[in-house]
Amino acid sequence: MITEDVLKDIFKPRILKWRTSITKVEPNKLTTRGYLQEDLIGNISFAEMIHLLIKGELPSKNEAQMLGAVLVSFCDHGVTPPSTQTARIMASTGSPLHACIAGGLLAFGKNHAGAIEHAMKTLQDGIKRTEDDINRIAEEIVSHFLKNNEKICGFGHRYHNEDPRAPRLIELAKKYGCFGKHSELATVIEDLLFEKKGIRMNIDGANGAILSDMGFNWTVGSGMFMIGRLPGILAHVNEENTRESPFRKFFEIDEIYYDGV
Amino acid sequence: MITEDVLKDIFKPRILKWRTSITKVEPNKLTTRGYLQEDLIGNISFAEMIHLLIKGELPSKNEAQMLGAVLVSFCDHGVTPPSTQTARIMASTGSPLHACIAGGLLAFGKNHAGAIEHAMKTLQDGIKRTEDDINRIAEEIVSHFLKNNEKICGFGHRYHNEDPRAPRLIELAKKYGCFGKHSELATVIEDLLFEKKGIRMNIDGANGAILSDMGFNWTVGSGMFMIGRLPGILAHVNEENTRESPFRKFFEIDEIYYDGV
Amino acid sequence: MITEDVLKDIFKPRILKWRTSITKVEPNKLTTRGYLQEDLIGNISFAEMIHLLIKGELPSKNEAQMLGAVLVSFCDHGVTPPSTQTARIMASTGSPLHACIAGGLLAFGKNHAGAIEHAMKTLQDGIKRTEDDINRIAEEIVSHFLKNNEKICGFGHRYHNEDPRAPRLIELAKKYGCFGKHSELATVIEDLLFEKKGIRMNIDGANGAILSDMGFNWTVGSGMFMIGRLPGILAHVNEENTRESPFRKFFEIDEIYYDGV
Amino acid sequence: MITEDVLKDIFKPRILKWRTSITKVEPNKLTTRGYLQEDLIGNISFAEMIHLLIKGELPSKNEAQMLGAVLVSFCDHGVTPPSTQTARIMASTGSPLHACIAGGLLAFGKNHAGAIEHAMKTLQDGIKRTEDDINRIAEEIVSHFLKNNEKICGFGHRYHNEDPRAPRLIELAKKYGCFGKHSELATVIEDLLFEKKGIRMNIDGANGAILSDMGFNWTVGSGMFMIGRLPGILAHVNEENTRESPFRKFFEIDEIYYDGV
Repeated sequence: MITEDVLKDIFKPRILKWRTSITKVEPNKLTTRGYLQEDLIGNISFAEMIHLLIKGELPSKNEAQMLGAVLVSFCDHGVTPPSTQTARIMASTGSPLHACIAGGLLAFGKNHAGAIEHAMKTLQDGIKRTEDDINRIAEEIVSHFLKNNEKICGFGHRYHNEDPRAPRLIELAKKYGCFGKHSELATVIEDLLFEKKGIRMNIDGANGAILSDMGFNWTVGSGMFMIGRLPGILAHVNEENTRESPFRKFFEIDEIYYDGV
Repeated sequence: MITEDVLKDIFKPRILKWRTSITKVEPNKLTTRGYLQEDLIGNISFAEMIHLLIKGELPSKNEAQMLGAVLVSFCDHGVTPPSTQTARIMASTGSPLHACIAGGLLAFGKNHAGAIEHAMKTLQDGIKRTEDDINRIAEEIVSHFLKNNEKICGFGHRYHNEDPRAPRLIELAKKYGCFGKHSELATVIEDLLFEKKGIRMNIDGANGAILSDMGFNWTVGSGMFMIGRLPGILAHVNEENTRESPFRKFFEIDEIYYDGV
Repeated sequence: MITEDVLKDIFKPRILKWRTSITKVEPNKLTTRGYLQEDLIGNISFAEMIHLLIKGELPSKNEAQMLGAVLVSFCDHGVTPPSTQTARIMASTGSPLHACIAGGLLAFGKNHAGAIEHAMKTLQDGIKRTEDDINRIAEEIVSHFLKNNEKICGFGHRYHNEDPRAPRLIELAKKYGCFGKHSELATVIEDLLFEKKGIRMNIDGANGAILSDMGFNWTVGSGMFMIGRLPGILAHVNEENTRESPFRKFFEIDEIYYDGV
Repeated sequence: MITEDVLKDIFKPRILKWRTSITKVEPNKLTTRGYLQEDLIGNISFAEMIHLLIKGELPSKNEAQMLGAVLVSFCDHGVTPPSTQTARIMASTGSPLHACIAGGLLAFGKNHAGAIEHAMKTLQDGIKRTEDDINRIAEEIVSHFLKNNEKICGFGHRYHNEDPRAPRLIELAKKYGCFGKHSELATVIEDLLFEKKGIRMNIDGANGAILSDMGFNWTVGSGMFMIGRLPGILAHVNEENTRESPFRKFFEIDEIYYDGV
């Protein structure tokens, strides 16, 4: 018989456009990845929450420490990053906070925050090919890039020849048991690149390797960078708004070179 | 029992979510503001289409000419606008075209493209108070702003003391019968400001007045600016992508002043 | 001798971070692509201005008519496009106009506005391979896509089996002398696809072909779509703001299917 | 003659454009708020880093625990928030990750994430007027809003009549010594609102009060929400990309009501 329930069931796929496995929302009850939110609040760290949201499960204590360190390391690089510059320029035009921060993130192109994603993909593809001969994979990767005269994402930095964050992160990965195959591969690549070109691992190489060893897919790599960097961008927008004149000129006319007709 | 009410209730959520009066979409048939799209394409100008979309009706021939001139006038101001700078910085990071253009628009804050909206609101509020004594309204507006030592949006320009676009637009408004009460008010304000402070009308003042006389509400003012400026931003993103090195340094470390602890 | 000029010259490359060939900005003087802006305003159409900005030169009268028709055709597709939906949802949250429009553009991903870019690249790559045997190129393209069971961008539409805009645009291309090799290629592809799969050219295929024949590079294709669609998105944001309740619920809790733990 | 003044003048433009007190960038050395980054990485939690960036100093251990709880509480609300919906719709169009997340943030308008900012401003303005008679201030605030028939941001929730996160946060604020004047004010307001209208404090009210008591200015309130919510938005974009078909239809044509001409 065509009851109300039968009809509802027939049209369910049409009605239910949205499905999710992240958080169940019921009146007065929020359950995220199987945990009541009021049980998570105050009992786990923000880094653990991030792990739960992205990976779907809580990290071990060591993993939580490691992820916290990774997130801290993304914090800020002054006003040199294009994302920070654009967020501040937007703030100066009087755009609201959320638009400035969104604007900062739009400058996270493949040459900027995209680097960690690319580093993770290179390392994960390498380890997928073989876990047994990391030296060979490292040599293949390095010669492939050198032959094509390309930069290997995760190595070298335009402002530092020894990025101080990378060795600290690798040291912590060893301490917290997060130094696995991907980190080993990154380290061997660094040795080859340093020998051949004097280039060292940078923060993207270190964090990309560690996150890979912690089981994060390369597709969320630049997302992890965004999580870690957003507070710094907020601090800059706040600094622009509180210390600088609104709509200040970033250039005078004579600082621009016109070379058209 | 399956009554009509029961059925209506089941389907209620999906029926009521979205409604629009702009375009009717049927299979193989698109009707915008009452016109078949295939009848609009090739028979009206882009400026006329913009008028139809925003105002809900086609403009007269004179209004179409005027709106075209307004849109042309927004075209480009080199790399001095923050919107252009941010779009180019984003392009340099390797962000895709649509993200760069969106990013440029996010720099259209209240101090930048917001100026035309503010100018239109000032003029429209003024004329709403009285259409009969424009001189008095102009004096009230000018003394209010001067007393509070504020800038009147639409007058003065940080790179030009005589914005060459404004008089040209006012001249065309007279030619095309679009010089009404709002334009008159703007002109009287300009006279007072020029006498007292040597300040002239700028492009936002002229376009804000003309669009107001054409019946555009101030709430769409900065939207008209965005429509007119988007092609220029696209040209700049294209120029950045084709002429400059990816991820170029916009600053050296020693060009940044650190004044923290 | 180290004069002021010598020093300035030495440091010029360092000082002049920005160069452009689009608009020369001088006090009280704006020159775009070699034309004074006050001479462009009122003398050319908005479509001609767009051509000047993107292509670097004014179009012929026929090309201007064609480009106008292309821009008109992008106008609006109701609330079915994700870009329109997101812009309206943002407006509902109380985000300012420029943020809503920017947000709409962020939904112009490779599956949406990216389609025209992809269509243009396919056609331009095809014609670059040979201009002499368009039938062969068309067959190669079609069999390549069918073999990989892929959609050819520019053909087929999820709401229309005969997109009414495409034949109208092709008709105008013939009228205005803008039907060249790329349009021919698109037409032959359509014939093959219709024969094999019952699929017809859509607006992206038609506009992509015509813009290619007018000399636009595929890299600006989705930018042209954005220019044409922005007024429609503005109309929708305006409609949301004036007709709907702020922060309306787009879904009830029971319209969402939770399938997590 | 090349005097010191001449030289200063030549170099003035490039020296003065950018300044910051957040991070000092030197080759191979990064100092944030006075601490070497390699000393922060691995030694402080992500919540402590966020405090250092935004407030300019490290929190006490209790404040660090409280801030962690606040950030965890912002985590996710399924697909009901417009920010999550827009980010997923954008992902479906094939936009890259950073564009989807930026797009999600653009839906953080004054009716959505703006609520916490507004709640903080109300509480901070109240306490600024008097710290001595919190009951009177609470009554003033409540009657002001009720008289104007307005919603008080921070109280009431469209999906919950008892937001389970708020009491948990208030409990933690008491535990960690972060329950000060602002939290007291919020609690008295809640009592009045519950008595008069059956309305309870929500997450924005609780977090807004606690952050105010921790010394955060209301201008960074929605920024703290963005930091806390970004990981959830990333999880949703990832879920959309891995579980749903690209460019899925969110509506059928017959689910849209056309009410134009």
